Amino acid sequence: MSSTMKLMLFSFFTILSFQTVFSVTPLIVQHPLDPLTEQEITLVQTIVLRKYPTSRNTLTFHYVGLDDPDKAAILKWQQSPKLVKIDRKSFVIAIINSQSHEILINLKAKVIVSDNIHKGNGFPTLSVEEQGQVIELPLKYGPFIASVNKRGLNLSEVVCSTFSIGWYGEAKSKRSLRVECFLKEDTANIYVRPINGITILVDLEKMKIVEYHDTEIEPVPTANNTEYRASRQRPPFGPKQHSLTSHQPQGPGFQINGHSVSWANWKFHIGFDVRAGVIISLASIYDLEKHKSRRVLYRGYISELFVPYQDPSEDWYYKTFFDAGEFGFGQSMVPLIPNLDCPPNAQFLDAHFAQADGTPTTLNNAFCVFEQYGNIMWRHTETGIPNENIVETRTEVNLIVRSIVTVGNYDNILDWEFKASGSIKLGIALSGILEIKAVGIKHKSEIKKEQHGSLVSANSIGVYHDHFYIYHLDLDIDGEYNSFEKTNLKTVKVTDGSSKRKSYWTIETETAKTESDGKIKIGTSPTEFAVVNPNKQSSTGNDVGYRLIPGPAVHPLLTEDDYPQIRGAFTNNNVWVTPYNRTEKWAGGLYVDQSRGEDTLAVWTKRNRDIKNKDIVLWHVVGIHHVPTQEDYPIMPLLSTGFELRPANFFERNPVLKTLSPKDVQWPGCPK
Amino acid sequence: MSSTMKLMLFSFFTILSFQTVFSVTPLIVQHPLDPLTEQEITLVQTIVLRKYPTSRNTLTFHYVGLDDPDKAAILKWQQSPKLVKIDRKSFVIAIINSQSHEILINLKAKVIVSDNIHKGNGFPTLSVEEQGQVIELPLKYGPFIASVNKRGLNLSEVVCSTFSIGWYGEAKSKRSLRVECFLKEDTANIYVRPINGITILVDLEKMKIVEYHDTEIEPVPTANNTEYRASRQRPPFGPKQHSLTSHQPQGPGFQINGHSVSWANWKFHIGFDVRAGVIISLASIYDLEKHKSRRVLYRGYISELFVPYQDPSEDWYYKTFFDAGEFGFGQSMVPLIPNLDCPPNAQFLDAHFAQADGTPTTLNNAFCVFEQYGNIMWRHTETGIPNENIVETRTEVNLIVRSIVTVGNYDNILDWEFKASGSIKLGIALSGILEIKAVGIKHKSEIKKEQHGSLVSANSIGVYHDHFYIYHLDLDIDGEYNSFEKTNLKTVKVTDGSSKRKSYWTIETETAKTESDGKIKIGTSPTEFAVVNPNKQSSTGNDVGYRLIPGPAVHPLLTEDDYPQIRGAFTNNNVWVTPYNRTEKWAGGLYVDQSRGEDTLAVWTKRNRDIKNKDIVLWHVVGIHHVPTQEDYPIMPLLSTGFELRPANFFERNPVLKTLSPKDVQWPGCPK
Repeated sequence: MSSTMKLMLFSFFTILSFQTVFSVTPLIVQHPLDPLTEQEITLVQTIVLRKYPTSRNTLTFHYVGLDDPDKAAILKWQQSPKLVKIDRKSFVIAIINSQSHEILINLKAKVIVSDNIHKGNGFPTLSVEEQGQVIELPLKYGPFIASVNKRGLNLSEVVCSTFSIGWYGEAKSKRSLRVECFLKEDTANIYVRPINGITILVDLEKMKIVEYHDTEIEPVPTANNTEYRASRQRPPFGPKQHSLTSHQPQGPGFQINGHSVSWANWKFHIGFDVRAGVIISLASIYDLEKHKSRRVLYRGYISELFVPYQDPSEDWYYKTFFDAGEFGFGQSMVPLIPNLDCPPNAQFLDAHFAQADGTPTTLNNAFCVFEQYGNIMWRHTETGIPNENIVETRTEVNLIVRSIVTVGNYDNILDWEFKASGSIKLGIALSGILEIKAVGIKHKSEIKKEQHGSLVSANSIGVYHDHFYIYHLDLDIDGEYNSFEKTNLKTVKVTDGSSKRKSYWTIETETAKTESDGKIKIGTSPTEFAVVNPNKQSSTGNDVGYRLIPGPAVHPLLTEDDYPQIRGAFTNNNVWVTPYNRTEKWAGGLYVDQSRGEDTLAVWTKRNRDIKNKDIVLWHVVGIHHVPTQEDYPIMPLLSTGFELRPANFFERNPVLKTLSPKDVQWPGCPK
Repeated sequence: MSSTMKLMLFSFFTILSFQTVFSVTPLIVQHPLDPLTEQEITLVQTIVLRKYPTSRNTLTFHYVGLDDPDKAAILKWQQSPKLVKIDRKSFVIAIINSQSHEILINLKAKVIVSDNIHKGNGFPTLSVEEQGQVIELPLKYGPFIASVNKRGLNLSEVVCSTFSIGWYGEAKSKRSLRVECFLKEDTANIYVRPINGITILVDLEKMKIVEYHDTEIEPVPTANNTEYRASRQRPPFGPKQHSLTSHQPQGPGFQINGHSVSWANWKFHIGFDVRAGVIISLASIYDLEKHKSRRVLYRGYISELFVPYQDPSEDWYYKTFFDAGEFGFGQSMVPLIPNLDCPPNAQFLDAHFAQADGTPTTLNNAFCVFEQYGNIMWRHTETGIPNENIVETRTEVNLIVRSIVTVGNYDNILDWEFKASGSIKLGIALSGILEIKAVGIKHKSEIKKEQHGSLVSANSIGVYHDHFYIYHLDLDIDGEYNSFEKTNLKTVKVTDGSSKRKSYWTIETETAKTESDGKIKIGTSPTEFAVVNPNKQSSTGNDVGYRLIPGPAVHPLLTEDDYPQIRGAFTNNNVWVTPYNRTEKWAGGLYVDQSRGEDTLAVWTKRNRDIKNKDIVLWHVVGIHHVPTQEDYPIMPLLSTGFELRPANFFERNPVLKTLSPKDVQWPGCPK
């Protein structure tokens, strides 16, 4: 979904969470994958505005990020960080005089390396600030004011929100947004109080309303029972939850140095990108037996989130959002609340990004890092050896990197969970608020025609929709050259009387040769998926690897020729494998707003490139079909999915065989 | 898997975890679903032995449990516990003079109500004690001693283990077990040191070896790197995990009264059965808006666990275990280790069951109950309302009931997780040890023929297998009369030009009329499953219900006519729905040892009974296909699966809307 009005909040949030900082902070040793600093963002602004002064140009920044160095350079740097120098570069997308410029800047040399104009379809990520301008337009627009009055509503209680418009076959596209408005009267929960029946289209170039219709009046659902703030609710509260206080007497088990994290046997880098949000890079794990750190993941992040709604009517058909590419996962991250969004033992990192005018802004508490306790790592009770009492249990501490991306109504709680056993678990949990369609129906018995959603409260339809997340997972298992293996579990019939069994299953492993072999719809047959290094074997001759252990598989239900599905064609498979290509980052394309599906993963892979024993990238689509229920209203308890990357013959044996449970300790914090 | 030698451990465990108790403990008010007490077990023993004195009969007890009262009686009792009296009864299966007797005893009247002889196929659950006798036999058997000597092994380092033999079409069955032996020299990890090539069949009636072959000699894999006990390992240990200490200043949020638990908005009963293990009954949740407790689950437990191995060779084909029915989930539960198997804030409950001679024994710390912290319950950051700073996050406390069932090599960590939001999450995690086949192969390159498993270490094949758990879930959503609904998500093509979209999806809900409608292979199409009460609607007219949210679906790969699959036919579907029938408890049949599949869920449902608006039971199969990796060796880090029962229009709205996060507190334990 959409709706962002952060600009308007800047004054307010300055104190709370955003800070516009210009001062120079002390230089710390920088990792070449560190996100742009505030100073670097300011430098980008200066360099671009020097070439395109605003006195003679209209210019807005839509993407300012690190131009990530070549992998080869990073890997060399990693080996000799003191010897190898990598120039910091920034990649910028700015709309300058109505054209999308792709500007590459060398921050060390302080020069523009290249400046190309994007000629194709699609527009860059929307800026927070232009959306902030857009939502003010209806409130000063006569026909809208008339519509509000006609409905007997109070204009001062109306707030509006922006919605990307998608592409539905038009030959010409203009940068535009739809606007919908809501009533905030007596509730913070605007999404459940839509003012329906009004169509507003804003031309972003002209920054004015260019289309306006007021077709039908459905009552705005009441504010009753919609408020979720405790401060605005009346008792009784409940059920009651008891408190727990905790302490780590040895301190946390992890260290954060700049953006580099080391914990237990893991080392990795936490990056930030205004579009991708969290980027985990250079994750490697120390092998206690081989006495060395071994590479697992070069880079991982969520490349796109596609949220198509399933109501084809005039007010809803276009709602097929690409939350990362259109709204920016990074700029939609919200400040994490200590002790609530993350437990008391969490540490926090800030993030910086450029505003539309190029000025840096700070998002405090953008990520948190914490250790999670309470699970079993492995165990066994052995009752089979006479006169011996054998029980061994190891408890587990995991490390979680969390961020929360709130694009309008929905909050995406995104976890990277590292386990000492070598697994990386990717957790997605959804909370927040449903998009509600207002209807003149209070009871299911009144429904006479398809409503495209569930009646979650009187006058409130929770419209059907999907959440499709695609992860970019550039695994480098013990090196860049990897292969993707599908291991099919196949029934074998015994017909020759050689066994009393009539059947059994065995495995058949196939190495994907080209990209078409790497396209997989999960769930059609029992298969295990792994990225292996065919050049490195364990002592028993198994290729070292990591398995992808998927969660419940979800497949798109739109027809492949439907416009949103052409744009979101990367959801056609749950797994894709591509050769590493620095430019193939965004599964829905670099310019997703009003894209036409010409630059998606589905298009790239048509070349059917070789992927066997190459530097490959695994893409994984996970998701949820969402048929809302009343419990999702007015705010939704967490709905979760996820998957696991799990070592498979990567280690010679269980890598936590010799990991001890943390010692039982008593609270040491009492004054003597 | 198999292997149980608990008898031999009794002397040892007496101090640690088992206690044979004869004293009378003070009477507490009993719940009619409470498991049999020690006194009641002793009474059963007395009554049965009075009729069948051992002076004139050979008699062994194979099941002694509560004969659970009719549901109607329980529900009446629940309404007026002081007025309604329910006689305690015990159901007993004993083998008396080679016949399986089903004896029903009225414990109040102290009389045998009925005593029937089982005429059909299959045998009762194996007793711990007879398995203890069986594993001693080879050690005194000349040909086996010769085989051990021939291999140059030390007999005093040999331990044996029992394996149920299944059924492979034989017309006549005798109660028998296969025995395999292992080397415990230099390791506690016997399962990875099998002495292969020896076939031993024991007749349980005669309690003697009736078949013995020594066919081929494969080397026993070495003990190197197989030990998992920290006390027997050499440094370096690692990676290091930091400690965390915690405290609940208000005490735990739950109360346990006898076997009844109340926590937050939930109340339920924890039962125990020697065959099923944990039974959760009468789970109901308090509805803050309706001001009443509402029924959700009448009874839930794991009805069977089917573990077929996938090696058809003479030494392995028969390994197709039914861990609940053959070995007893309850009698295979292990004492939970405080602070390791359960966190420091856990409380523990004991369990009692009858030994083969009818004497009660106590399993200490059979279950634990604890609160788990650290997750988000729901949240939203609202950036869309100008000049307002709106962030609400509620943290979540969940209640977990844990037990661990160790049947030989594998440890099943079984969690019931209750959420204040109304969800019940069922967690299954596997740890323990692989069953290993010894082979003369040290490297994959030496493999010339199918080995039916992964080379997880030199000379060690981890044989392919499955774990299929079937849950019996007698949901009573707001009453007994419920229906099962399948909601299919279907693509609709737009061909009339009524929308700019070419497609969307909508739902089609079908109510299952008969049992055949309730048979579902999950994953073939996008479907939501719910048990609803068609007689109770929400204020907006939705049937109140609970959804089944499955984990990754697993389907059997054996052919349907294969003997193990006939016996385990309940795995043919992931979902089955039956009308409540007090006798239909065990999905693989009441007599599973050497069963012939005549009494399975697949057979019962052939009657195709009505299930619409009836008292229905939901059965759910979850599982894991296990292709072992080296990391699973010598002991396996947790491998997890599970599913969720989630309210769906059961509540008018989010039931934790007015639940507050636990208060932040400081440790209060310092002396003043």
